[in-house]
Amino acid sequence: MEKIRVGITGGAGYTGGELIRILLHHPEVSLDFVQSRSNVGKPIHAVHQDLAGETEILFSESVNTNVDLIFLCVGHGEARKWLQENPLPGNIRLIDLSQDFRLNATSRREGNGEAFVYGLPELNREKIRGAVNIANPGCFATAIELGLLPLAQQGWVTEVYTTGITGSTGAGQGLNATSHFSWRANNIQAYKTLTHQHLAEINQSLNQLQHTLGNDHLHFVPWRGDFTRGIFISSQLRSDRSLPELVELYEEFYKDHPFTIITGNPIFLKQVVNTNKCLIHLEKQDGLLVVHSAIDNLLKGASGQAVQNMNLMFGMEEQEGLRLKANYF
Amino acid sequence: MEKIRVGITGGAGYTGGELIRILLHHPEVSLDFVQSRSNVGKPIHAVHQDLAGETEILFSESVNTNVDLIFLCVGHGEARKWLQENPLPGNIRLIDLSQDFRLNATSRREGNGEAFVYGLPELNREKIRGAVNIANPGCFATAIELGLLPLAQQGWVTEVYTTGITGSTGAGQGLNATSHFSWRANNIQAYKTLTHQHLAEINQSLNQLQHTLGNDHLHFVPWRGDFTRGIFISSQLRSDRSLPELVELYEEFYKDHPFTIITGNPIFLKQVVNTNKCLIHLEKQDGLLVVHSAIDNLLKGASGQAVQNMNLMFGMEEQEGLRLKANYF
Amino acid sequence: MEKIRVGITGGAGYTGGELIRILLHHPEVSLDFVQSRSNVGKPIHAVHQDLAGETEILFSESVNTNVDLIFLCVGHGEARKWLQENPLPGNIRLIDLSQDFRLNATSRREGNGEAFVYGLPELNREKIRGAVNIANPGCFATAIELGLLPLAQQGWVTEVYTTGITGSTGAGQGLNATSHFSWRANNIQAYKTLTHQHLAEINQSLNQLQHTLGNDHLHFVPWRGDFTRGIFISSQLRSDRSLPELVELYEEFYKDHPFTIITGNPIFLKQVVNTNKCLIHLEKQDGLLVVHSAIDNLLKGASGQAVQNMNLMFGMEEQEGLRLKANYF
Amino acid sequence: MEKIRVGITGGAGYTGGELIRILLHHPEVSLDFVQSRSNVGKPIHAVHQDLAGETEILFSESVNTNVDLIFLCVGHGEARKWLQENPLPGNIRLIDLSQDFRLNATSRREGNGEAFVYGLPELNREKIRGAVNIANPGCFATAIELGLLPLAQQGWVTEVYTTGITGSTGAGQGLNATSHFSWRANNIQAYKTLTHQHLAEINQSLNQLQHTLGNDHLHFVPWRGDFTRGIFISSQLRSDRSLPELVELYEEFYKDHPFTIITGNPIFLKQVVNTNKCLIHLEKQDGLLVVHSAIDNLLKGASGQAVQNMNLMFGMEEQEGLRLKANYF
Repeated sequence: MEKIRVGITGGAGYTGGELIRILLHHPEVSLDFVQSRSNVGKPIHAVHQDLAGETEILFSESVNTNVDLIFLCVGHGEARKWLQENPLPGNIRLIDLSQDFRLNATSRREGNGEAFVYGLPELNREKIRGAVNIANPGCFATAIELGLLPLAQQGWVTEVYTTGITGSTGAGQGLNATSHFSWRANNIQAYKTLTHQHLAEINQSLNQLQHTLGNDHLHFVPWRGDFTRGIFISSQLRSDRSLPELVELYEEFYKDHPFTIITGNPIFLKQVVNTNKCLIHLEKQDGLLVVHSAIDNLLKGASGQAVQNMNLMFGMEEQEGLRLKANYF
Repeated sequence: MEKIRVGITGGAGYTGGELIRILLHHPEVSLDFVQSRSNVGKPIHAVHQDLAGETEILFSESVNTNVDLIFLCVGHGEARKWLQENPLPGNIRLIDLSQDFRLNATSRREGNGEAFVYGLPELNREKIRGAVNIANPGCFATAIELGLLPLAQQGWVTEVYTTGITGSTGAGQGLNATSHFSWRANNIQAYKTLTHQHLAEINQSLNQLQHTLGNDHLHFVPWRGDFTRGIFISSQLRSDRSLPELVELYEEFYKDHPFTIITGNPIFLKQVVNTNKCLIHLEKQDGLLVVHSAIDNLLKGASGQAVQNMNLMFGMEEQEGLRLKANYF
Repeated sequence: MEKIRVGITGGAGYTGGELIRILLHHPEVSLDFVQSRSNVGKPIHAVHQDLAGETEILFSESVNTNVDLIFLCVGHGEARKWLQENPLPGNIRLIDLSQDFRLNATSRREGNGEAFVYGLPELNREKIRGAVNIANPGCFATAIELGLLPLAQQGWVTEVYTTGITGSTGAGQGLNATSHFSWRANNIQAYKTLTHQHLAEINQSLNQLQHTLGNDHLHFVPWRGDFTRGIFISSQLRSDRSLPELVELYEEFYKDHPFTIITGNPIFLKQVVNTNKCLIHLEKQDGLLVVHSAIDNLLKGASGQAVQNMNLMFGMEEQEGLRLKANYF
Repeated sequence: MEKIRVGITGGAGYTGGELIRILLHHPEVSLDFVQSRSNVGKPIHAVHQDLAGETEILFSESVNTNVDLIFLCVGHGEARKWLQENPLPGNIRLIDLSQDFRLNATSRREGNGEAFVYGLPELNREKIRGAVNIANPGCFATAIELGLLPLAQQGWVTEVYTTGITGSTGAGQGLNATSHFSWRANNIQAYKTLTHQHLAEINQSLNQLQHTLGNDHLHFVPWRGDFTRGIFISSQLRSDRSLPELVELYEEFYKDHPFTIITGNPIFLKQVVNTNKCLIHLEKQDGLLVVHSAIDNLLKGASGQAVQNMNLMFGMEEQEGLRLKANYF
């Protein structure tokens, strides 16, 4: 098969860098260009310095429209603007990693074009296979949704009390008080309590399966963690089903999804760091169910899932290029 | 004033070490002995190596009964046994840092003696002042109770969904898979989901103020954190009171308690690390209240609170010896 | 091509786990067995828990002698013993990750068999290609040797003053005071000052190129670092050659070695973490040269290099299975 | 005794914050003002947030000249300028934490005034006692000098090969690529190889004791460490004296200096973190001596030493206010 030709715009950030790392070794992809307005002409290994010795690609100023797919890594609020300023031929597919097109109400870009499909394969795999444009889910959204979708399918989601913790890469490269090492090392802080911006897409996904749920049942307290990669979630909610019944439901729901794995053992974050996996573990005490889930925020929570979506869109094997060696330690 | 003479048994562990660090600089205390069966005859700085150059005290084999107070740092299940094996004169006061005497039902030691008072000054200060024996609260228990006591006083505690994260020192010096650096660095894991052993004392304290609450309203998911010191808690519960009303309640409740501080700014763990403080911050969204609290698990959650209790028992100023420089960074 | 059939003995440790992670995705290898006496019958994902969902292989009790290659991961002092207790057919090749066979004087196993070749491809690639048995180099040894070999080739090594820092995985899974998270987090300590056990193999390799050097010119102070993976080295030594001349020498020496890369930019540890690369950066001030080098101790310093050796022994491409996505953050 | 009245200018930075933390609990000091141009009118606990509940002092715009001492924490290059712009009465003593006045050649401020004394008590205690102005030493300089001064006193310093590692607070609050948590976590990097700006003051101090040493014998490679506080140094140099003789020399040299401690056990960084101590450990192998030293860069390396100097200048006990509880874990 001829290789898929892809480009990346916004390639100097964290998600752009992770895409490059994956795509350089993807056997069916040719990386055509990496655009970054602030780094034009520099080798990409001047920014993503682990790539020293692996590639001599330079950041480009312009977009080559002779590609099959463009990944948009330009940041929230910038993707929609970028598409307005860069009219593309209709045959180029798009995967946008920002939140600009995730909600149905705003999933269509101005002027024309197909609506963006919400790119969570465990929820929308068939739609993704036929999609022209993909809105790649948020990192917290991915981890929380994967922990609740099987319940939503049964109409069993009730009030959910969720705490989640995220690594520093979730906040991007921006320099500010809470990204300073001296502050963040050995520290924990809650932020955006009950108001995190991913709540909207989570509610949309839950309602896609449990139509009458509404938008005010998920209560989410995010924490800043003192590590760089990963998201760990614990969601508490009532359930009158037995634990074995629930485990069976989850295993059945995810049995054809290679990256989402139900395990009977307590999970921990480093099982998934530097992989595209989501691990889920269920526990129950009296009538209360706790769902733990863990992902790497930059992979299953961003660039890895974007490649997974690309694989589906182009009829490749879903895991192609994503069999990544875990860091583990 | 003549100095209080104190001894420590079980002085080689984390809480024993922290007690020594505090007491060596406490202006009204003379540290008489530090017992550790496994280290008899060694200088205490051979175990607590930061004390090199500060003291030449040796670990003792036996207990000197000519002291005013003994701190028991011998571990859960060991304190009761130690007291059986070491009959003490009735005039020696005790502060036990284990969980052996925290619950009313078992707060009396075999044979004779006064019942142990649960040593949370913000709940029991007057009783502590007159106490002979103190059961020092657990670390998670301290942080969670301080976050909920003002509500309990009003009878406003309902179902509470709590997540808490603790540093590695909370698990003691024991060597095991989850205390290995290679495992714990950059990692997060839930453990004892909904079944943590501190639930009993938390429920007891809440019921002391809110008599009809019962014992099944607090749902607690503890996490292992990838840092050494500190506990951060977020508790979610329903409340139909306004945020200003709640803040006023908390400020009023704690206004005479020097170590527990309500702040209008988002709190973070390192504000309290290496201090005896508890910081509390309230947030509310629609009908849902979130109470964040943070302590150092070894200080306000253990040895610092033990010294605070000692200060109260002997009529000293509550903060004596506990004005500790925060680590902060 | 038919796949190479390989087995691992001592597969429950860190290096065994990393080998499994690499070999499961190596396109030309079939992993036949993973032996671990203490885990017989358990799935390997019960020990290496990131492998949940990836493989159902069980730890085996016995060794299958119908394989092409066995990796020995049984620990220092154990490999020689294991080979005595497990007589193998002569056609099975061996790669031993312990230090038992690294020195020429003891590179032959009792009874019979070919001598072990010291498996540093940048030094011995041709010998490795024809080898039956490989002694895989030590982690510190790899990083220090790669930083000095080009100088040794020219006879330019003089007194060398080296400091190196290593992650906790370098010390294995053993539980002890310095592997406890509460001790190692945020900590630094020198150990085995000037007496590290890798000095012998480093001196052997340097003398292989610079025959008259002798064994007392390298002075090495190793430090324990507060991270899990990686080694960073700075070596100071006199040189009267110019920096450009030295850089050219290094680039020429390594130009055909895909994993060892000379760069003109300051290097940092995370460029190589979770990869098989070694990065080298040279600086010079007056007559003093400083050579910085960095590797992942478990990959280029152990299991990655073992796979690189396997690739060479079996005529495969040197990088096969080793194009690993860096962790980077 | 009446309290010393002190002020701080540049009080929003790391060293200013540490000074405030120490001085608030110093029994013989009254903190009169804390100036910070960028924070005028804010409570100091809005910046140094661990001080919530401890003080309601506000950052001031102007300097009160009715004080006994001012600490200058305004940054390198800013202190000299600040003194030009803020003419002070001659009776106010100064302790400057920048490097502006550390070298003899530039230790006098423009116009008039006493020269600044280099404030390393172990080297210049008597001069400090009589000083009007103190230039507080640099952090790396303090740790390296304390490791070598006894040798210099004997004229035994030869070529020294030093590696040192520092926490992130050594680089100040500035936001840049290498202070970002995502970069610095789990990372190591050499910087300013052989060219660190503290070399000049180190050479000056060594030559003060060993007059013929010159300025080109110390070769220093600094590393960025992945922790917030502390400096660890290993210096290698030739010596034909025996280890016991050297240990005796060091013990004798420091016997009256309460903060610098020679120990026969291997030292580690966390023994001194959050204290004003310097620990030193000597090792020797054949003719090569290795001196390890460790300090907290913000305390003995900055603000703690500044308070120590203040204590000496005003005839107080040297340790007053500096008996700090170590963090240790």
